[in-house]
Amino acid sequence: MKKAVVLLSGGIDSAVTLYLARERGFRPTALVFDYGQRHSKEIIAAKRIAKKARARQKIVKFDFPLASSALLDQKKRLPANRSFSEIKKGVPSTYVPARNLIFLSIAASFAESQRAHAVFIGAHSEDYSGYPDCRRGFFDAFQKAVARGTKASSRIRIYAPLVDKNKKEIIKTGLRLGAPLRLTWSCYAGGKAPCHRCDSCLFRERAFRELGVNDPYYEKS
Amino acid sequence: MKKAVVLLSGGIDSAVTLYLARERGFRPTALVFDYGQRHSKEIIAAKRIAKKARARQKIVKFDFPLASSALLDQKKRLPANRSFSEIKKGVPSTYVPARNLIFLSIAASFAESQRAHAVFIGAHSEDYSGYPDCRRGFFDAFQKAVARGTKASSRIRIYAPLVDKNKKEIIKTGLRLGAPLRLTWSCYAGGKAPCHRCDSCLFRERAFRELGVNDPYYEKS
Repeated sequence: MKKAVVLLSGGIDSAVTLYLARERGFRPTALVFDYGQRHSKEIIAAKRIAKKARARQKIVKFDFPLASSALLDQKKRLPANRSFSEIKKGVPSTYVPARNLIFLSIAASFAESQRAHAVFIGAHSEDYSGYPDCRRGFFDAFQKAVARGTKASSRIRIYAPLVDKNKKEIIKTGLRLGAPLRLTWSCYAGGKAPCHRCDSCLFRERAFRELGVNDPYYEKS
Repeated sequence: MKKAVVLLSGGIDSAVTLYLARERGFRPTALVFDYGQRHSKEIIAAKRIAKKARARQKIVKFDFPLASSALLDQKKRLPANRSFSEIKKGVPSTYVPARNLIFLSIAASFAESQRAHAVFIGAHSEDYSGYPDCRRGFFDAFQKAVARGTKASSRIRIYAPLVDKNKKEIIKTGLRLGAPLRLTWSCYAGGKAPCHRCDSCLFRERAFRELGVNDPYYEKS
């Protein structure tokens, strides 16, 4: 079986990506980043999802030097109850400088070390159009940098299979693949239950609502 | 003054690059990676060089997940007493998977966090032609990935001012700029004194020999 490294955050998108990698015949290793995110609950979610998918998992601890982001700093206020058009304007305060650049670079190194030729990332630009590192143009440019900066024989390919999809389509794909969406965690706030106010909660809720499907997160006993 | 982030390893190339950044009117912050290199002596060297240059310094600890490299693993044998033509053939066992990709990504994040628009790296392909991540093609591709993956307003530029120079020219530049070459450390082995056998020692010694200059490392009292 072909090896793949899959960035797994604990959210819906990366969980679906993990199952997409499996469907495409890859044996995935889940790479989970513990980077001081305020919603560290997502790490626990990621571990559960990897276990459910019977994927190997590797936790990488990484501290962003001096990065300032509402996603890292409990003292900063998270954007709340914004309209979708508002969310899509500009770079949100939850942007972490060059996060996906770093995560993908580490994933590429990890892939090269274990002779995997594939790295999967679940980013998509539909909801996260404000994040520069979630767009197709970035992934294409990064692909070229990886090809130049690693051994020619490593032939590492970057897959961002969801990049042009929206949350609704991603959930549909997840349901089709039997991805354990009930184990996923989206909320940016680190609370016990989802806050229903942050951008991430709003996108998740709208998608399930529009699909006419109950969010399986709440079906947990 | 313009801010810059300079990758500082403790070797000659990055020390000269630090002084080049200063000459070009930048106020540099030295980014030093503690990544499990067997020659951790270079970290001490880097700190001394940064101090001498009155540059701010930031040490970043990073463990390469599962990476296999003679530069990280004391049990692996370092290449020794190779001819220069031999060294330039293929990727050496001291290659660390995607190392410069990761280091530059972290430097770009750091630069974006503190609104620096410049990242300097002292890599050059003359001696290190076997390392894919030391070549101009890689830096050009990485530049595009950074432009796409960070905020448009961040305008981060990657400078690799030594990329087409050889060690002799680099040392000459360092002498002209008054860079503290006596504080630099090149040897891959972690010994008390340079081993005189590893690729890095051989390049350093040949360059000083051809220049007809004594290596100031040995002038230390």
